[in-house]
Amino acid sequence: MGEFDLIRRFFTRATPRAVLGVGDDCALLQSAPGMQMAISTDMLVAGRHFFADTDPQALGHKALAVNLSDLAACGARPLAFTLALALPQADEAWLAPFAQGLLALADAHGCELIGGDTTRGPLTICITVFGEVPARGANPTAPTSALLRSGAQAGDDIYVSGTLGDAALALRALQGTLVLPTDALAAARVRLERPEPRVALGRALRGVASACADVSDGLLGDLGHILDLSGLGAEVGMDRVLPLLAARAQFPAGAAQFDQQFGAATAQQCVLAGGDDYELVFCAAPAQRAAVAQASAHSATPVTRIGHMQAAPGLRLVDGFGRAVAPQFASFDHFSAARDRPT
Amino acid sequence: MGEFDLIRRFFTRATPRAVLGVGDDCALLQSAPGMQMAISTDMLVAGRHFFADTDPQALGHKALAVNLSDLAACGARPLAFTLALALPQADEAWLAPFAQGLLALADAHGCELIGGDTTRGPLTICITVFGEVPARGANPTAPTSALLRSGAQAGDDIYVSGTLGDAALALRALQGTLVLPTDALAAARVRLERPEPRVALGRALRGVASACADVSDGLLGDLGHILDLSGLGAEVGMDRVLPLLAARAQFPAGAAQFDQQFGAATAQQCVLAGGDDYELVFCAAPAQRAAVAQASAHSATPVTRIGHMQAAPGLRLVDGFGRAVAPQFASFDHFSAARDRPT
Repeated sequence: MGEFDLIRRFFTRATPRAVLGVGDDCALLQSAPGMQMAISTDMLVAGRHFFADTDPQALGHKALAVNLSDLAACGARPLAFTLALALPQADEAWLAPFAQGLLALADAHGCELIGGDTTRGPLTICITVFGEVPARGANPTAPTSALLRSGAQAGDDIYVSGTLGDAALALRALQGTLVLPTDALAAARVRLERPEPRVALGRALRGVASACADVSDGLLGDLGHILDLSGLGAEVGMDRVLPLLAARAQFPAGAAQFDQQFGAATAQQCVLAGGDDYELVFCAAPAQRAAVAQASAHSATPVTRIGHMQAAPGLRLVDGFGRAVAPQFASFDHFSAARDRPT
Repeated sequence: MGEFDLIRRFFTRATPRAVLGVGDDCALLQSAPGMQMAISTDMLVAGRHFFADTDPQALGHKALAVNLSDLAACGARPLAFTLALALPQADEAWLAPFAQGLLALADAHGCELIGGDTTRGPLTICITVFGEVPARGANPTAPTSALLRSGAQAGDDIYVSGTLGDAALALRALQGTLVLPTDALAAARVRLERPEPRVALGRALRGVASACADVSDGLLGDLGHILDLSGLGAEVGMDRVLPLLAARAQFPAGAAQFDQQFGAATAQQCVLAGGDDYELVFCAAPAQRAAVAQASAHSATPVTRIGHMQAAPGLRLVDGFGRAVAPQFASFDHFSAARDRPT
């Protein structure tokens, strides 16, 4: 058996939802009438998006999770994905857990592996994911019911799901730039290595949220996309977002101890510009507060209101009294880097 | 302007056919009623699929061409594609011609760039392409009208489009393992660097061909996929396929001179197992010969009948008198390598 037959063995599976799955020149998908297909693609490169020695099961999970997170941001239901994989060698001890992590998450979301490509090369994973949304939603004049980045209105509330910044904190600890207590590191590391895409929340927000994006590159960067595409500005409360760093709240003597140990700028930087959160940041009219709470409850996903959209362009950080707060971290490096991606 | 804004500038274009193109978390496509979406993905890695110093315009062309060739093999009409790109650096002098080559071919086929991802990393190109085929075709009980590898019947004729082996010959010349006359090299190099996907022929063959694959990994390998998936064998005439090596026929003193200079095995190897041809190999019942000729004429694509399908498994090479011919090349290396790809 050729070594790449091994790959075929790990990745060829039944695809009851697709007309045709792995094995021909193309896979075939048929949309239900009135549905649109949501499509996103992400490429993960060893040494840039993950350490080459990352646990392959976690890597398989994450490679699909970051794509499902894009579907979540559109409110789409996952259908299928393709996997293109460049590998230095076909190593069964790596492939088996990678496939396991990948396919377990795929199964959890009913997302079928319908095709792909494998080649030798520097370890690179490119997944393209397909989901569906109804063409028509609550607004009969809109061309789609998908959640877009462009739909926010001035006065809309801004929310974020779950917690923020723990993945970035774990990355620093793993890179050795700070030391976390064992428990805090373990919890933060789960956020870095096994993000859970907010698919149920995204679907529940269709018809409720006016705009949505996933937080892959950091809150400021991804909320910035909503601002840009909606042609608006925003005010975000630092007192609302800082508590979202779970590791900070969990410190034995609380947030003050965290800030004393790592400097106040660390928490800010992780929460505002950390990246790898895979939460959703979204907007909704104040009249939708009960509906947002219902979507949160229905999807068992906590959400926090962190600010509101404004007509004046730009993003303003404020304290609990509405006073402007200057970010305490000198560099917006990752924030800038965050905007270096076309989708 | 960040360097990746450069990329955005080159690759963000209007997408009148898509509901939503580049710039949000997902792109949105809506199929026309009764249509299925054909999907294929290919990853090209520098140093493996192309020389790192390949003319970027040709590379842009080829990266999309190999994907469109998969749509052609299914008889699908191209709709759209996503592009994921890892680059060592964002170099305008490279990106501009790459985008030009890519988008010129996209425009020629009405195929919209609807999304993508860019990152730093070893030069790697991953394209996922979307086409459409009617769900229902000539056979009302089939689940699709797409051309599949699995539909061939014993007794069907086997055809191949265009010419075979010239890309492989050019590769050898560029690698320095043989020397071609300047004109022959130039012609062969076009086949290697700027393959033209047989989209029009593939579409014309829907309802005519019983099975089809594109010749990306060499005739034996790709016809082998049809044999495997159709559960059949085949007989192929060496006298039919050897003349398909255009460079050989064009030698000043003809095929004999070519064989004398390079050995008879070279022509065989290039034609049978050369790879990178991006022609179509397909089967059709003898009753369809007039229809095949019409599809060929309609798409302005020459086709050659090279053999027929048989019930007995295995692929047999025969001479003009139907006598078995043993391949004269010792190694089926690339042929074996050819089967190392799941789709």
